Amino acid sequence: MSADLVIRNAIVVTCDGDGGVIGDGGVVVEKGRIVRVAGSDDLEQAAQEARTVIDGRGHILMPGLINAHCHAADSLFRGLVEDLPLEPWLQKVWTAEGAILNPQTSYLGSVLGCAELLLSGVTSVMDMFWYPEETVRAARKVGMRVATGGIFFDGPGVTGGDLDARIAAAEDFFAGFGDADDVFAATMPHGAYTVGPENLKIARAIADRHGGLFSTHAAETRAEQDDITGRYGSSVIRHLDHLGLLDERTTLAHCVHVDEEEIGILARSGATVSHNPMSNLKLASGIAPVPDMLAAGVNVALGTDGAISGNDLDMWMALRMAATLHKGATQRADAVSTAQALAMATTAGARALGAGDRLGSLAAGKHADMILIDVRRPHAVPLFDPVTHLVYSTAKSDVRHVFVGGEQVVRDGALTRHSIDETLDEVARLAPRIAATIA
Amino acid sequence: MSADLVIRNAIVVTCDGDGGVIGDGGVVVEKGRIVRVAGSDDLEQAAQEARTVIDGRGHILMPGLINAHCHAADSLFRGLVEDLPLEPWLQKVWTAEGAILNPQTSYLGSVLGCAELLLSGVTSVMDMFWYPEETVRAARKVGMRVATGGIFFDGPGVTGGDLDARIAAAEDFFAGFGDADDVFAATMPHGAYTVGPENLKIARAIADRHGGLFSTHAAETRAEQDDITGRYGSSVIRHLDHLGLLDERTTLAHCVHVDEEEIGILARSGATVSHNPMSNLKLASGIAPVPDMLAAGVNVALGTDGAISGNDLDMWMALRMAATLHKGATQRADAVSTAQALAMATTAGARALGAGDRLGSLAAGKHADMILIDVRRPHAVPLFDPVTHLVYSTAKSDVRHVFVGGEQVVRDGALTRHSIDETLDEVARLAPRIAATIA
Repeated sequence: MSADLVIRNAIVVTCDGDGGVIGDGGVVVEKGRIVRVAGSDDLEQAAQEARTVIDGRGHILMPGLINAHCHAADSLFRGLVEDLPLEPWLQKVWTAEGAILNPQTSYLGSVLGCAELLLSGVTSVMDMFWYPEETVRAARKVGMRVATGGIFFDGPGVTGGDLDARIAAAEDFFAGFGDADDVFAATMPHGAYTVGPENLKIARAIADRHGGLFSTHAAETRAEQDDITGRYGSSVIRHLDHLGLLDERTTLAHCVHVDEEEIGILARSGATVSHNPMSNLKLASGIAPVPDMLAAGVNVALGTDGAISGNDLDMWMALRMAATLHKGATQRADAVSTAQALAMATTAGARALGAGDRLGSLAAGKHADMILIDVRRPHAVPLFDPVTHLVYSTAKSDVRHVFVGGEQVVRDGALTRHSIDETLDEVARLAPRIAATIA
Repeated sequence: MSADLVIRNAIVVTCDGDGGVIGDGGVVVEKGRIVRVAGSDDLEQAAQEARTVIDGRGHILMPGLINAHCHAADSLFRGLVEDLPLEPWLQKVWTAEGAILNPQTSYLGSVLGCAELLLSGVTSVMDMFWYPEETVRAARKVGMRVATGGIFFDGPGVTGGDLDARIAAAEDFFAGFGDADDVFAATMPHGAYTVGPENLKIARAIADRHGGLFSTHAAETRAEQDDITGRYGSSVIRHLDHLGLLDERTTLAHCVHVDEEEIGILARSGATVSHNPMSNLKLASGIAPVPDMLAAGVNVALGTDGAISGNDLDMWMALRMAATLHKGATQRADAVSTAQALAMATTAGARALGAGDRLGSLAAGKHADMILIDVRRPHAVPLFDPVTHLVYSTAKSDVRHVFVGGEQVVRDGALTRHSIDETLDEVARLAPRIAATIA
């Protein structure tokens, strides 16, 4: 059988967990899956018979990045509210969100965010937002995978609606997307400080019934820890653990304020922590004890958070910070290795999606979610080691080509399915209304 | 008289110290100097008569960034040695440098580094390297300004030579470049741990005699503090102060490990501290107390350090880190404001060069060192506030046009004076020899 796609002559970083690098190699893709990863010489015949052959010369070929915590639609509010601590900042953001967001604007913001993500080489994102169907529609518009689902929030939030409405929306989401290949359906309560214990358990039960994912914010700030401890007599992670919410299908965003015992709880549970370094720094939340979590065996993935905290969705920035911030903060040069950081952005993210067997590395049988990175840039030559190159020198603008399920969704730095100009124009027209919400 | 250049229709961020922003404006340039900064309407007539008119629509116009600490030629060794603490890392780097560096390779590395800097909007750099004449040659090749000068180092270092040779080289540098408009001549002893007190004073005396600048590494690591305290009985900053080395013409790179009294010494002296956040994190040096230094009135500028510590020369990354790292580290959302961060990368850098009257802001009488930044990018829309946009959302790849002394040296993201491909090819040919030095 002839292949749909062969990429060869690239430097291949497989992210397969053994530090696998092929100095001159590529992949064979059939029906959206990788069927072979090999040296270029061994790909000659496949290339002759393939429908499409791409010359990866001067590029690194690697799996698409996986962003484990995002709010893509919040890109509409990028830079609107700045330099406040989390709680007063959230109040202002929620005011703006409440005034602007509806399904149409959420779709617009999600297209903007997903476009940014995909252009920078993120092929799957775990995204929490008020209108998850719109997030799916946006992700499909540009051609990427998304983990999302019904939000739980005890107040009216942006959408209004009571508990029954939230339950119905969550169930509807599973009914609509539970079986999709490009959607990882979840329930997503906002956080233990905005969703009471009973409702957290209801959200969890829905995810359990459908074998879906479960994600929430946790232990982001000291104020949150004080709040939860005051209300429930135990810290955030213990509280979630007592409620039976932590297992392999759980992703907790942030976990900045966790003690040694809590790290042990996280490790034993198999839950994923999404580390979001730029958001944690900018919002003054603190510096998560990532080296300790890694040492304890916690599955630490990497996220950007939304563009109102970040202020962009730059996974390369997050990757570089994951590898450098903790070295500086602990004054230990081996605090987080480049291999560990790269795994956070790939295989750990795949595990967070419950898709470790399908995503996160270049290996036969996996989805052909792959990116080609131009390594011939003034800021990135010479290249001595591809892994350190990816972690320490690569910029989002180096990503030239992106494939999801074997389909090329970014070519020469541009989306293939969607004209981004339309979106930028529409956002520009909406911007004055957004600015007016906090004026 | 008709202007040489008018730029209009841009969002102008003047960096003039009053947070000056013109929503729709531009500049008039004559003979390499800015003669007027104004709203676009007021520039109509100047535009009609100007030799060149540039439409800045969809762009921010701001002064070129000033990188206060760099080793551009070290870009040759980018990624060669990774994940070691400073001291053993330096030993390996010095081995590689010693084997590879000569005037020709230093020029090559400096062109590579200067090209990266200029393409990302850095129009002036303070650079310390073994062959400062080659650094100047490289900076002039691409068209940027450079502060550099004779290195002092008590051992043989890369170049060999004794004290007399270093003195002669330092004097020669002043003779050659002391009066140049595009060079800020300096003496640059490597550090208090590699240059003894007498030689530090000799280096300083040469700078003083010529009214030049003086820059050295200081208080980068705890090991250095222990070393200096053990040898001289006082910490690094006190040691430099006792030797009379601190004043307005002094720039100290790093200052990670300084106590409150030392911060007071720095503030009173008028010396500049170059904060190099990415280098400090990656080399596990620590996190500099920048908020305390700013509060005490220290002139804190911003640098990238060399690409062997960074691993690139990305001042936008440094700018974002300057504004976010300290918020996270101190858990104070007001630790460093966006305005303070932007000043570090512009006006504080100009002051470090002794050129506060000529560089660092857009104002009549100053050199026309300016950059135009495309703000219509998926990662950077919408735009609510230009200053926070520059600090939190701008990427180096957004820099489209760069002017130095009114000359356009980057057009549409490409150097105008030099074909970067030549340099990239030459570096690629040299890379195997570099790799072999540490094999």
